Amino acid sequence: MFKTLSCSKKLSGNLRVLALNKPTGKRCSSKKAAPNYLPRIFSGIQPTGDVHLGNYLGAIQKWVELQNSNQDVIYSIVDMHSITLPQDPKALKQNILNITATLLACGIDPDKSILFQQSTVSMHTELCWILSCLTTMPRLAHLPQFKEKSATVKDVPLGLYIYPVLQAADILLYKSTHVPVGEDQLQHLQLAQHLAKLFNGKFGETFPIPHSMINDDSSCRIRSLRDPTKKMSKSDPDPKSRLQLTDEPKVLLNKVKKAITDFTSEVTYALDERPGVSNLITIHSLLSGKTHDEICREAQGLDTGRYKLVVADVVIEKLTPIRERLLELEREPQYLEEVLRKGGEKATDIACDCWHEVRDKVGLSNNVLSSASKRELGKLQSSL
Amino acid sequence: MFKTLSCSKKLSGNLRVLALNKPTGKRCSSKKAAPNYLPRIFSGIQPTGDVHLGNYLGAIQKWVELQNSNQDVIYSIVDMHSITLPQDPKALKQNILNITATLLACGIDPDKSILFQQSTVSMHTELCWILSCLTTMPRLAHLPQFKEKSATVKDVPLGLYIYPVLQAADILLYKSTHVPVGEDQLQHLQLAQHLAKLFNGKFGETFPIPHSMINDDSSCRIRSLRDPTKKMSKSDPDPKSRLQLTDEPKVLLNKVKKAITDFTSEVTYALDERPGVSNLITIHSLLSGKTHDEICREAQGLDTGRYKLVVADVVIEKLTPIRERLLELEREPQYLEEVLRKGGEKATDIACDCWHEVRDKVGLSNNVLSSASKRELGKLQSSL
Repeated sequence: MFKTLSCSKKLSGNLRVLALNKPTGKRCSSKKAAPNYLPRIFSGIQPTGDVHLGNYLGAIQKWVELQNSNQDVIYSIVDMHSITLPQDPKALKQNILNITATLLACGIDPDKSILFQQSTVSMHTELCWILSCLTTMPRLAHLPQFKEKSATVKDVPLGLYIYPVLQAADILLYKSTHVPVGEDQLQHLQLAQHLAKLFNGKFGETFPIPHSMINDDSSCRIRSLRDPTKKMSKSDPDPKSRLQLTDEPKVLLNKVKKAITDFTSEVTYALDERPGVSNLITIHSLLSGKTHDEICREAQGLDTGRYKLVVADVVIEKLTPIRERLLELEREPQYLEEVLRKGGEKATDIACDCWHEVRDKVGLSNNVLSSASKRELGKLQSSL
Repeated sequence: MFKTLSCSKKLSGNLRVLALNKPTGKRCSSKKAAPNYLPRIFSGIQPTGDVHLGNYLGAIQKWVELQNSNQDVIYSIVDMHSITLPQDPKALKQNILNITATLLACGIDPDKSILFQQSTVSMHTELCWILSCLTTMPRLAHLPQFKEKSATVKDVPLGLYIYPVLQAADILLYKSTHVPVGEDQLQHLQLAQHLAKLFNGKFGETFPIPHSMINDDSSCRIRSLRDPTKKMSKSDPDPKSRLQLTDEPKVLLNKVKKAITDFTSEVTYALDERPGVSNLITIHSLLSGKTHDEICREAQGLDTGRYKLVVADVVIEKLTPIRERLLELEREPQYLEEVLRKGGEKATDIACDCWHEVRDKVGLSNNVLSSASKRELGKLQSSL
């Protein structure tokens, strides 16, 4: 599964690729020259309740674009990350199936993407342990997300502190070369890059240094409909602040109509001065593919009230088929489990190769397992 | 594999059982009354180089006694713990086989004990992750071993901080009821007890609260032959300070003859006043089963120089067959791997049941795996 051919695929132009650290033989202190790795994209999503338009436009729509531009993509439902804060077990089980249904309804095709549940591939935590032994405590303590989250919790759970190491394992286990991340996750990716270099330097070339694909340019970040200075968020107590993929058309219409704008009636894009209408234009743009300029030109003569109806139409047109497919899929839990099982098999297949290479290099293995057994293990493992 | 019958076996009288926390329905806040768990003993040993008499008398001889008194015993070669500090991969691989050979040569019988390599059972790190999400950082930071080890290292590796959580997973994964530990490990066992109670309270009765079996009474701790105020240790730069299981008889004789004693010629036991001769009496006692008094009576009329010859005889008589068997076994790496593979299968068999129960309770599972597949997985997993 591990390809060392030269980089022949071009990454989708839709994502800005930030080549923070190019994997060259020079930079990592490995004995052998670093091979060129074929591009492989890894990303994860937490199974936490219903998905809103901000999640869809910020991540899922881009996942689908990457998949459809024939990238080698691996998407993980990262349930082991979701338990770093307390979860209701029943809700968690349900959310794992819900997010699977949502991703499929949004266009993730399990024949084109590897879609799997993280905890069904045991090697994530195994590699995490190895990487924990390479990470130092000061390296973790200054990560901004940890500082932020730990400020609100009295006795910080250990999981909240060490989860960036599990994230690094998630990425490296598949020898991923590119990772779509939000700007807030950039430092975590830098940890993965650091650990990849450290491992390569210590044990010989093993991991590509993963590049970040920044995917939340502030100009396309979706804001709350009730307070456009804030991000659209599932934790906002006001459900009118967000458009859910499961909202019925009339609910969507109503929420867009009640979106906070300002007292200017024209439709113009000015993110800082007119955040409300600009947010609607952003939504419109991301859903339709039109530029802000095109949209403003077409909306000449409309006041913001009339323009909201246009936006609502676009939203409803995009989300209605997703919602319908989602409702269908939610009635088929066995199909969803089957999708996850098959995805887990494929993920395990790749992870196994990497894990055995790592075991051997670190000195844990005595090479007693045949390749055939590894494959067999993969199949079983993924169905856990 | 998980038995809920009443406790019918009696634990070996050789180990002092400290029932720190009895698993009663009252103490853990589980909804159901806690079942009585059949005794199961778990212990681990690091694969770090050659074994000396202090290791043998302090742990391995007791493991053999427990095994031979028909306890349900699980012994793990904890290679994932050994990498919390840097290791040479080649040496680590060799040490895993060496410690296996040593344990077998000392009398561990793979038909009576489950003997396995920790890293071949992936569920140790998986359960470790779950427990990490229940542990708080302050709970770990004040563990004395962490304080001690971290004082000597500049940038503390994360593994050194979180390894007590992996230890807890090692123990709980097998629903172990008893754990032979040194006094220095007692607080780590208390963490395992704390996490078992926490998990049971949160997710329902799952784990017995493991009891400690204190096995290094200061009166039977083996001291350095060159400085009897210190423990016999593999890190002592003077090889004459310790008796290795691999030492030839004439080397053993020489080391015992050169053991530091004092200027009194009589053979009397007085640990504080006469640590050198008392150390020899302790070695003699633990190897022969005789009490200190019996030994001193028998040695009446001998000066310490002549007594050393008696001790050397006892040491040589005990260690020679072990050494011979060890040398034989070291020539059979494939047999050693086979022992570990079979042990890993048995360990996985037990671990699987527990892990699936945990997954289900925490909310990660959607129960898509049949029991048959679990077993099959176990067999393959252990041969990794």
